[in-house]
Order: sequence, then structure tokens, then C-alpha cells
Amino acid sequence: MKIERYIKLWIEEDIGKGDITTDGVIEKDFDAKGTIFSKENGVLAGGIFIPEILKKFGEFQVKFFKKDGEEFKKHQNLIEVKGSAKGILKSERLILNLLMRLSGIATFTRKFVKALEGTKIKILDTRKTTPGLRIFEKYAVKAGGGTNHRMGLDSGILIKDNHILLAGGIEEALLKMKKNRPAGMKIEIEVKNPDEVKKAIEHGADIILLDNMNIEEIKEAVKISKGRCEIEVSGGVNINNIEDYKNLDIDYISSGALTHSAKWIDLSMKVERV
Amino acid sequence: MKIERYIKLWIEEDIGKGDITTDGVIEKDFDAKGTIFSKENGVLAGGIFIPEILKKFGEFQVKFFKKDGEEFKKHQNLIEVKGSAKGILKSERLILNLLMRLSGIATFTRKFVKALEGTKIKILDTRKTTPGLRIFEKYAVKAGGGTNHRMGLDSGILIKDNHILLAGGIEEALLKMKKNRPAGMKIEIEVKNPDEVKKAIEHGADIILLDNMNIEEIKEAVKISKGRCEIEVSGGVNINNIEDYKNLDIDYISSGALTHSAKWIDLSMKVERV
Amino acid sequence: MKIERYIKLWIEEDIGKGDITTDGVIEKDFDAKGTIFSKENGVLAGGIFIPEILKKFGEFQVKFFKKDGEEFKKHQNLIEVKGSAKGILKSERLILNLLMRLSGIATFTRKFVKALEGTKIKILDTRKTTPGLRIFEKYAVKAGGGTNHRMGLDSGILIKDNHILLAGGIEEALLKMKKNRPAGMKIEIEVKNPDEVKKAIEHGADIILLDNMNIEEIKEAVKISKGRCEIEVSGGVNINNIEDYKNLDIDYISSGALTHSAKWIDLSMKVERV
Amino acid sequence: MKIERYIKLWIEEDIGKGDITTDGVIEKDFDAKGTIFSKENGVLAGGIFIPEILKKFGEFQVKFFKKDGEEFKKHQNLIEVKGSAKGILKSERLILNLLMRLSGIATFTRKFVKALEGTKIKILDTRKTTPGLRIFEKYAVKAGGGTNHRMGLDSGILIKDNHILLAGGIEEALLKMKKNRPAGMKIEIEVKNPDEVKKAIEHGADIILLDNMNIEEIKEAVKISKGRCEIEVSGGVNINNIEDYKNLDIDYISSGALTHSAKWIDLSMKVERV
Amino acid sequence: MKIERYIKLWIEEDIGKGDITTDGVIEKDFDAKGTIFSKENGVLAGGIFIPEILKKFGEFQVKFFKKDGEEFKKHQNLIEVKGSAKGILKSERLILNLLMRLSGIATFTRKFVKALEGTKIKILDTRKTTPGLRIFEKYAVKAGGGTNHRMGLDSGILIKDNHILLAGGIEEALLKMKKNRPAGMKIEIEVKNPDEVKKAIEHGADIILLDNMNIEEIKEAVKISKGRCEIEVSGGVNINNIEDYKNLDIDYISSGALTHSAKWIDLSMKVERV
Amino acid sequence: MKIERYIKLWIEEDIGKGDITTDGVIEKDFDAKGTIFSKENGVLAGGIFIPEILKKFGEFQVKFFKKDGEEFKKHQNLIEVKGSAKGILKSERLILNLLMRLSGIATFTRKFVKALEGTKIKILDTRKTTPGLRIFEKYAVKAGGGTNHRMGLDSGILIKDNHILLAGGIEEALLKMKKNRPAGMKIEIEVKNPDEVKKAIEHGADIILLDNMNIEEIKEAVKISKGRCEIEVSGGVNINNIEDYKNLDIDYISSGALTHSAKWIDLSMKVERV
Repeated sequence: MKIERYIKLWIEEDIGKGDITTDGVIEKDFDAKGTIFSKENGVLAGGIFIPEILKKFGEFQVKFFKKDGEEFKKHQNLIEVKGSAKGILKSERLILNLLMRLSGIATFTRKFVKALEGTKIKILDTRKTTPGLRIFEKYAVKAGGGTNHRMGLDSGILIKDNHILLAGGIEEALLKMKKNRPAGMKIEIEVKNPDEVKKAIEHGADIILLDNMNIEEIKEAVKISKGRCEIEVSGGVNINNIEDYKNLDIDYISSGALTHSAKWIDLSMKVERV
Repeated sequence: MKIERYIKLWIEEDIGKGDITTDGVIEKDFDAKGTIFSKENGVLAGGIFIPEILKKFGEFQVKFFKKDGEEFKKHQNLIEVKGSAKGILKSERLILNLLMRLSGIATFTRKFVKALEGTKIKILDTRKTTPGLRIFEKYAVKAGGGTNHRMGLDSGILIKDNHILLAGGIEEALLKMKKNRPAGMKIEIEVKNPDEVKKAIEHGADIILLDNMNIEEIKEAVKISKGRCEIEVSGGVNINNIEDYKNLDIDYISSGALTHSAKWIDLSMKVERV
Repeated sequence: MKIERYIKLWIEEDIGKGDITTDGVIEKDFDAKGTIFSKENGVLAGGIFIPEILKKFGEFQVKFFKKDGEEFKKHQNLIEVKGSAKGILKSERLILNLLMRLSGIATFTRKFVKALEGTKIKILDTRKTTPGLRIFEKYAVKAGGGTNHRMGLDSGILIKDNHILLAGGIEEALLKMKKNRPAGMKIEIEVKNPDEVKKAIEHGADIILLDNMNIEEIKEAVKISKGRCEIEVSGGVNINNIEDYKNLDIDYISSGALTHSAKWIDLSMKVERV
Repeated sequence: MKIERYIKLWIEEDIGKGDITTDGVIEKDFDAKGTIFSKENGVLAGGIFIPEILKKFGEFQVKFFKKDGEEFKKHQNLIEVKGSAKGILKSERLILNLLMRLSGIATFTRKFVKALEGTKIKILDTRKTTPGLRIFEKYAVKAGGGTNHRMGLDSGILIKDNHILLAGGIEEALLKMKKNRPAGMKIEIEVKNPDEVKKAIEHGADIILLDNMNIEEIKEAVKISKGRCEIEVSGGVNINNIEDYKNLDIDYISSGALTHSAKWIDLSMKVERV
Repeated sequence: MKIERYIKLWIEEDIGKGDITTDGVIEKDFDAKGTIFSKENGVLAGGIFIPEILKKFGEFQVKFFKKDGEEFKKHQNLIEVKGSAKGILKSERLILNLLMRLSGIATFTRKFVKALEGTKIKILDTRKTTPGLRIFEKYAVKAGGGTNHRMGLDSGILIKDNHILLAGGIEEALLKMKKNRPAGMKIEIEVKNPDEVKKAIEHGADIILLDNMNIEEIKEAVKISKGRCEIEVSGGVNINNIEDYKNLDIDYISSGALTHSAKWIDLSMKVERV
Repeated sequence: MKIERYIKLWIEEDIGKGDITTDGVIEKDFDAKGTIFSKENGVLAGGIFIPEILKKFGEFQVKFFKKDGEEFKKHQNLIEVKGSAKGILKSERLILNLLMRLSGIATFTRKFVKALEGTKIKILDTRKTTPGLRIFEKYAVKAGGGTNHRMGLDSGILIKDNHILLAGGIEEALLKMKKNRPAGMKIEIEVKNPDEVKKAIEHGADIILLDNMNIEEIKEAVKISKGRCEIEVSGGVNINNIEDYKNLDIDYISSGALTHSAKWIDLSMKVERV
């Protein structure tokens, strides 16, 4: 239902008071077929939203040659839609924009996931998502094989550097947080050095976020923790150096790049009368 | 007013039923100062939306060291906000996400604009924007010095290849479009070769969009047009080869990359009690 | 989709928390038939919205004896709806209010259009529409055979007297507008005398709006323009004197009266059990 | 608060994604003054909504030379607004459209009210209002001196001919209605002849609506009622024959024409720098 | 349609960005059956909203063993739903919460109604309802056999003690109210003693609300009224003493307790695969 | 911001198209003072929403004699509001309805909390809240001293009996849940007997919910858990028997009764001119 609200917004954004070109050049509607195909390799994401978008333009048949999470090669047909010619022309750009962005994220995530294959480490997204697209971008991360971190500030606890600073230190922040946390949520806290790791664990952190530590520092943090909490590593990890982290005894690697630096996968739609 | 609606959506997306961490670690609110600074060079865009976002979190003072459209260097302070500590913590991520994305677009656009300096050619955006962010991304293009193409399907006419195909040809499409167009809009049409250029102009196109033509083909199209219509070039132009287009007698170069391939500019916020 | 939003508003406006009378006098629903008929001659407009309205009241069959844009005589049946008796009673007033107003506009527009038959002149609407009803009233103008001017301030450029005054003159206004206009829109400007006609054309106006000029003045403006721009005539034209304008070499006549002075066409609905 | 929602809708309808002309010709905003003046005689209505509309465009000072319900002559200044030049240009059309329509209704209503001066008869509006404008049009009726009938189906009971027909007669309809009515509402029923008048009163109608009866029939209905219920007369009353009804012992005359046939009062705005 | 809006709100309230548990433990959806049964005796209310709620979760079959307004015993099956297992799990709590609260109100109202059986006295609800649930709680009162008082401040007139005080007395309040009331609404006024009863009736009250009077005072008020107005008794009436009021010549007893003090009826749902 | 949306809904629910009585009896507004006072002992909750509600009715001064979470005695003044007389009359009922319900919950919760004083056991609410009022009712639980369980299905994991049944057992459910859970959330699962306790802990439950177990069974479960997980007790606990649970080594007691069975605290408002 939330999704419907976004779709309405997107359609209003693009079509507003009407598609002047399509209604201008096609006076009487007829049936057509649109085929979405790839112009490069990738992992599909966003396919499940296509029928929801098309529903706003009439009745359509949608055939999936690939499902969300599946890999495709350059020049493969991915999805085929049949129905109102006008509807296809009016929705084409929105559908492609969404698929290209989400598939870009899934494709990029898949690379990280593959690099960590065979380890217990999960690759996590962050809140560095495009405003207004978070649930979709996080969906794409999952389609790529990643694990979601909290969806928003209301569904997880993460005490960051600025929180610690304004709360008056790690101890104070953890004490207050334990008092006020709703049942069922773990407390995660960002730490910067071995001292903070100790302090955080002693005051009840369930997860520690090692921010911008190098491999040696991470190893020390792992040693200190002795399995008393989960460990998330963040900062400085990218697709080129991720192999260096494979053998660490950590639980999560998180990366904002999954959502903010994934490039769009190039897709196109060819249309024909049926 | 539209903007308020987006801001509400974004805040709801991130905060939803409340920021558990901030309200957990800070029981009594106090005043704080947040300073947004750059971690790389760029062109600012999105600053004007910050006060609107902060309004939803209480009363804040906002000081701009840079305005939208202005260039900044790495490690410069850009914007300073003062007010509720809780408000700053709750809005920090949204503000940074928006600024980083929009400044990325403005910075990338500026490069194209500079490459075309001294010519009459305008650099145009397209409809390849992130769903739900179009008016913001197009705003960033303008901040970067670019020119907006139509905001959506309701505010401009562009007959594309799929329209031509389904309408039954260039002639048919243009005839119908002329009959149905609202007063005040030019008719633009996508063409692929010199023959189509001729046909389009003879049937009343006001702008022709040369899609994926090489330099020679573009020159021929220009010759054919004899100034009877405006000319837009699209496809294959990028920041590396744009110099090749500088001396052409064309009106516009459009590029989807401005919005879909701009990388985020890295910004951060440091917070302190005041 | 936009239309659904308006329909919801209208139903809420009329029914709000429930139709006390209908639910009071009919305890158990049954099927009924409602027939909309004319009490005077006219041109139908708004019929296409009836099924959308009825959808909110259950499942209905709708039969059209006349379509939007078709003429009818007094005492003809226009539309027949079958379904829930309660639904018919609850929606009757809204349906009639909409049809009566829109058919009024279509009927009035048709008179202007017929008066201009055989010429190239198009009859245009304006932004003088009832707040909240613009897309419907402009639809009715089209049903009557008229041509739409811009739908709103975001889909066309028209520099009016107050713009010129505050911008500091025709030249300044046109210079700035050319710099800032989005690709694809013509620039229209209001002019009052031959001098302004000259100035407007020289500074790049695509359309000139001759405001409240008499026939002689219009002829002079046409002469000055030498086909370099389109010409719209506005002010002082009404259904009684429109013949005087038939032989002018102009492109458009616009009239706010189409929407603000059209009188409602009298329609009624008779209901029976089925 | 409801009013704010309508205003938002109207502004979105007209401005949508932005006023291209105003933002094009005025790059830097400044202060201006707009004066709304009359081009014919009338009664003002809608003035109270002007500040609410302007609030959406910035901060404005609004000075009223006339208040809602007051009469004005041709060529009088009615309202003066001071503030952002851009804001005035962007809101001008909406403000005038609303004032012209509502003042038209108030002016027309005032004529009926004056014709009935000195009697106890109140002039009532109906539900024949423009979709989406009911609360505003009913407000204008009040400004003109009229009395409102129910605002919608949820705030009054009126059993009309179609209700009677489908409910199975006047008796059945009244019996059921009495059983189901919420506390506090009178039951009004439409009647067509003396027999129905009798039946309606005997079965508990609080108000009878005499539909399309002539003067003699109305007099007979009055006689039958013997003051046991209120009497509303509807149909066939217009501004030319209303004098004929002045001496009848009735409570209300209702007329759909108040809202659907009132012509717009011509108003205009002159703008200047300040 | 209004109801849809509430349902959306409730689902958003409970599910928000997704049901993590259900989507976590059930990866592939299948069909299931949920049976709602009673854990105590009661009167059902709210059943009609179940299909509307389920519609938001997919396609479901709903079988009603009991309808709204019908009594049930402990351990009876009331409603059975079949469809998506995930949908049932996601909607279960909302459905039960609504049914339990509304059935509580219907059950409690039924007791009052039964106590007054054989009299002309109607039991009325008040505006003391849970914010955001009024139309549902009033619906439950009707299902229990009660009569609705006005739905809100816009659909009935009730001059209460604070109105009288601020208006300057009973006379002033009634005079102004008569002048300003819309056609079709009765005027009800709260009175505290025999003097006020007299004054209220003399100045045109249609209904008097006897607030917190004892039996003797009520009898005197009845005597004074001589059938010239309706009488509503409020305050101090509860399910234990209601018998004392049975023989009074009054029209209504109203009680806020119907909605604010009804206890939830305990219901549960058992689920199984099908 | 969410709160504003609820407040708008509530005001629309009660006032809709206008408060006929207040606007009828008070023609010209003036200033008044309203004092909310208690008619029984209790704990205040909801006070912080009063200024937000009043904001929709104009400018008001609000003075708090008691804050949310503070206890009050019968016949104490709690809150005083000053401003528009009309605004006070229009908002009175909504304000009281909200305060009475929320204070009822806070008062009831406080009793449980006091009964557990001196232990580590926290009293938790559930999702058995009034549809549309959850965030307010959970706020009231906190004001009463309770701890919130998850706000909705998107902010916590609780595998209930129906989930287990449809997922195919405790093991399957926990395995899948661990695979799919977002980082940062504990996994809670409902168990019915010692066997299930063992199984749940072995398969990684972070919290076990002991449903409807008696004291002996709970003790055994505690013994089995050996501190490896948190323990929540639910079902059968009420204000009369809660002392029996005081000495158990458990973490939480949850009770739906906090929200669904709390009775309204009786409050009233006296109004006077100022």
C-alpha cells in the first residue's frame, strides 16, 4: 500500500496533467507490446513493481524472462508487457528509470556479496539512500544478496559519533539508551578505537560499529570483544579491497556506496503493434 | 508547496514513528550547532531546501557560506545550522543525502557547461531522473548552469522513436500533433538520418532531436535545416568528447548522464554543543 | 489518477459521513435504473467521468446514447445507469452537477467554433476557470471543438501586462524570458499597440497576444508581423460580434467567457426499479 | 483547515511545477502592490480567503476597502495586497477567479433577498453547486444575505421524488426515516400536490418542499398545513417573478440558480512596484 | 470511501514498512484459513469492515457465521477468512482489535436498549468517542440497537452550558442560533433547572437536554414542556439505575459510557493451512 | 509531523464542514479561558498534544499545572488555555476525549509499575491498541512508567503461535527468521512449555515469550534458560495477581489490558470570558 503511494507520486511527477505527445499523436488507442532488454550485464531488481505501475494505466499482461535477483547478460530480453499502446508509451520512462536504478544497486551489491562468499560476513546497506527511494533501494540491496540494516530511525538503534558527543560520552549514551529502548531492539554503537570498544561492551552494547579502522585495529577490536557482541565494519571498504576483510572474525560490513555509488544499468524498451 | 510534500515524505521515510536513538540518548533537548563541510571539490545545490527541512524539526538559524550554484573546495564549511540538538541529529542524514546527490549533479553539469563556454549551445537535462526526485534533480542541473528540458510529459512535446513507430510514421505523427497541440508549445521530434530531418522540417517540426548521430551526420542535418528549426543533439556525448561538438551550429546538447550518472559529492556534518 | 482524486473530493464534499436520507428510507438495497435526459438542446461533455464516479458507489452498467462532443436535442435520453438503487440516489446530484456545467461549456464553445468554421482561426480557452475544475472545464472546451491554451502556469509562457510592467518593459521581459525558458516552449507576450507589436517581434516573441484591440488595430498588427509570429486576439470578442473577426489573418481567438460565462445546460435523471 | 486543503489544490492546479513566466521575467524578487478593483457593481464575497491564499506565496499585507457582504460600485478599489512581486503575479488569477465567482453568487443572492425584504421568507440555496466549490459557494450565498440549506447529504434530511418512488411511497419513506433518523434533524419531504401535503404532514414531516407548484397550489398547501410544519417553495421562482411570492405564508424559497446561474462579477487587479 | 482512508491509516500504523516476522518466517506464500471465535458472550459489530481490510492484503473469501448486530455465545465461530497465509497473519491483529472494540460497544449498548424495551425512549450516543474512531463507534452503537446523536459539530445543533455562558444566556443563545441555523436542523439546548426549561421552550428550543437532573426534576421538566419539545436526559444514568427512567415521558437518554466505558469483547483467531 | 496528521483527522472527524452551534451562538469572537480539571485521581497523559491541537484553532496560551506522567488528585486544575472563545468551544470535546483516554492508560499502567517497584521487571504494552491511536496509547504507557514493546510489525520481531504453526515449527521459523532478519533486531518467539523453551533457545531466540504459563511453569522456563535469553511473561497477569510475579527472575511482563481495558479518567473543562 505504501508502494502505491510512491507510484502515484512518480506518475504525477512525470505525467501531471496529461501526456500531450502520446495523446496528440495517437488519437485512438490500440494494443501494443513493449519489450525491456538489457544493454549490459547485470542483476535485475524492481521487476515486481512493474505490474503495480502498469495497473495505473489500464490492464496489462506482464511476462518476466528474468526475476528480481537473477543475473542477465547484455542483449537479453528481461520483461515483456502487452496492453494499451498509450499506456506503454506513458509509463515507459518511469519503468525504465526505476529498473535501471534498482538493477544498478542489485548488480553492485552482488559484487560485494560474491567477494564475501564462503564467509559468515554479511554485507549491509546504510541510510545513505536517495531521499524518497529508501524502501526501493533497500529492496534492491536484498535482491543483490545483501542484508538490510535498519529501514529508518524508528526501526533500529545506532548510536553514532554525534550522538555520543552530544550525550556526553559512551557510558552516558549507553546507560540512557538501555533505560529507554523498546523491547526487542539491539543497541549498536559506533566506536573509534580499542578503548571505546572495551567501554562499549562493558556498558552493554549488543553490536559495535568499527568506523574507519584499519585491518589491524579491527583485529584488535575482535580480540577485545571475545564474542560478547556482534561486530560491524564500516568505512574504507570498497569493491577493490574487500578481499582483505574476508578472513576477519566479524559479522557485518556496511557500505553506503551500495546505494549512493551504484551506477545505472542501461536498459531499453522496444515497442511494436500487436 | 509541492516541495513541502516531498520533505514530509522523506522525513516520514527516515523517521517514521520516531528516532529511537536520539530520543533514547538525549532525554532533555538543548541547543547545538551543526556545520556541513566538504570532503572534495564541487558545486553546491540543494542548500535552499535545508531551511524547509529544518522547519519540520523546530526553529533553526541557518547560515550559508556558499549558495547554490557556487563552487567550493575540499574542506570548506558550506552551511551552519543552530538549534535543537535533537532536531539536528534527526535531520542530519536526510540533509546530507539530499545535498550530496544534488551537488553531485550540479558539479557534473558544470563540467559540461564549462566545456561549451563561448558557444551558443545549451546543455539540457532529460527525463532520466530518479523517480520522485525530478524537480530537485532538474533544479540541480540549473544550479550547475544547465538548461531544463520539459519537466514532464505535460509540459512539452517530444515525439520519440516509439511514438513515430506506433503513430505510423513521421508525417502522420506530426500532422496529428499539430492538430492536437495546445497553444504555446513547440513540437520536437526525434530523427535518425538526413531523410527524416527533411521530412520532419517539411511537416512542421519546431525542434529536431538528432539521436545518436555522429559529427558528420549532425553537420549534414544542420545543412538541411537551414535554420528553419532548432536542433538538439543527444546520445554519445560525454564529458570526454564534448569538445568535438563545440563548433557545430546546433542549439542544444542533451544528456541523461547529468542526472543518472553524476556521483555523490562527499559532505559531512560536525556537531557541537553551543 | 488525478481525476480519481477530484472525484473523491467531490463525493466527500456531498456525502461526507453518509447519506442520511437514502440510508434512512431504503434499508435494504436493490437494483435500479437511472436515465439522464435533456431539458434543452446542447453538446454533451463529462460523460466519460460518470463511470469513474459510479465506481465509488459499487458496480454499475453505464449506457451512453450520446458521447462527449455530440449534440443533443431537448427531451433526449443521454445516459442510462443500472445498479444499486442507493448508489444511484447518492451519486445523482454530483453526476448532474458535473454534466450540466461541462455540457454548458461545450455547448457555448461549439457556438464560437461554428462561427469560425472555414477559417484557420482556432478558438482558445483561458485560465479564467472555476478553481478546482480547470482540467474538467478545459476538457469541455475541447469537447465543444475548441483548442486548449496552457493548462497552467507550468505548461506555457505568457508574458502579460503586469509582468511587463514589473519586469521593466517588453525588451527586458523578453530578454530574460529567452534566457530562462525551458526548451520546447514558445514565448507569448501581450501587446497593446503597433509599437509594442514591433518591439515584441524584434525581441523574439513567438506569439503575440493582441489585447482589446479593435479590428483596424488588429489588421495593422497583422501587417507588421509579416508572418514572423503567431497572433492571438483577446478581449471584446463575443458570440454576437465574432463574425467580424472571421476574415482576419490571425491564428487564435481566446475568450474567458467560454468557461466563466457558459450557462448550465438543464439535465435531469428519472429513476425506476428494475 | 479544510479550506487550506482546497487552496492547496487550486494552487497546484494552476502553478503545478512552477510559474515559468514569472520566474523567467523576474529573476530577483522585490515588493509590489496589487489593487483589486471592480469593473461593475456587486456584492463582495471571498475576501476572507485572500489572506489564506497569499500565505502560500510568502508574507503579505492585505487591506480591505470592502468586506464580504458589502456592496460596491463600478470602479471602486476593493482589496489591496502588498508583498512579493512574484507572489502577486503567481496568485493573481486564482484570487480573481475565486472573487469573481463568489461575488457573482453574493450579488445575485442579494437581489432575491432584497425582493423578499419585509417578509419572514428566507431564501435558500440548494446542492446544485459546482463540484469542489460547495462550501465556498454556500458561503457566498450567506454573504449575499441568503440562508444555507444542508451542506451535504450528511447534514440534513430531504426525501426527494426519487427517494419516494424507490422507497415505495410517502408513508413508507416517512416511517422508515423516522425510525432511522439521528436525533436533532428535521425531516423534509418533497411533495407535488395537496394530497401529498396532507399525507406528508400526517406522517410526521417537519418541512414540506413544494416542488414546482403554482401560486394557487402553494396557497392550498399552506391552508392544509395549518402551521404544523415548515414550508419550502422550490422551482419556477426567479428574480423576475419573485414578487408574486412575497405575500405567501411560507418559510423558505429555494433556488438552484443562486449558485448555478449567477454570472461572474468582473474584477481586475492593477499592479505596481512599491 | 472515507472508510478506506481509515483502513489505510490503521494498516500503515501497524505494518508501516513491512511485517518483518511474517515475511521472515514464511518465504513463499500459500493459502490458509483463519477462524475468528468468541471467548465470551456478546453482540457482533465491525464485521462489515473485515472484507475492506482484507482487500488491502490480496484476495480473500470471507464467510460470516454472525452478522453485525447479532448476539453470540462464548466459544462460537463468528467469521472465517480464506486466502494468503501472509495476509492473514499481517491483518490478524488489526481485525481483532477493531472487532473487539466495536463488539464491546454493541454489547454494552444492547444492555441499555433491552432495559428500555417497551418504551418510546431511545438510547443515544454522544461525542465522547475515541479520537479517530467516531464513525466506527457510532456504527457499533447502531449495531447494538442504539440511536445516533449528531455525528459531529457540523451535523447537529446542541447549545451546551459553555455556549450559553459565553453567548450571554439562554435567550441570547437561542435568538442568535435561530437566526443562523441552516434549514433542516433542530435546535437542542442544555438546561439545568425548571426555570431554564421554561426559558428554553419559550425561545424556540426544539429539544431540551436535561443535564444531571434527578428523577423528580425530570418529571417537573416534562410537565413544563407540555409536549412542545423533545426531551433528552443525560448524566447519572447507568446500566444499574436505568430501570428508574423507564416510565418517564421522555424521548431520549444519552450516555457517553456507551462508547467510552464499553469493555472489549474477547475474541481470538485460530489459523490453519488449507 | 505524523502527529499533525492525526490531529487533522480528528478535527475533521468532529468539525467537518464547521461547528454550527458555536458559529451560530457567537457571532463575534472574543477571548476566553478554559480550565481543565480532574473529577477523580489519576496520572496525566496527552498534555503535550494540546498545544498542537489548539494551533489549528488560532493562537492560544497554554499553562500546565501538571505535566504528562505526573499524578493528580480529584478536583485539581490540570491545564489552562487562553485564546479565542470559539476555538476553545470547538476543540473542547476533542481535547477532553484524548486526555481522558490517555490519562486512563497512564493511570492504569502506573498501578502495574508500582506493583513491580524494586524489581528489574519491566511492564510492557502490546499491539492490542485502538486502531488509529497506537502511537498515542503507547505514549501514555510510557507516561505511566511502562516500557514500550515494538510500535508495529516493522519495528520488532515476534514469532507468535500462528507464525510457528504456518511456518512448520519452532526450528523452521527460527532458522528462516535468522536468515532474513535485518541487522539490529532481536528475535522473540512465543513458547508454550518447557520443551519449546529449550528448542527456542537452542535455535537462537533472543527473547522468549511465555504465553499463559502458571508460576511453576515460568520458574521452570527460567531455569532452562540459564540467562541465555530474555524472558517475557504474558497472559493471565492482572492488577490483582501481579504481586505473585514480583520475585520471578524474568525481564518483562506484557499486558494488553494496559491499553484495551484502561477506563477513561473523568476530566472536565470550565470556560469563562477574560
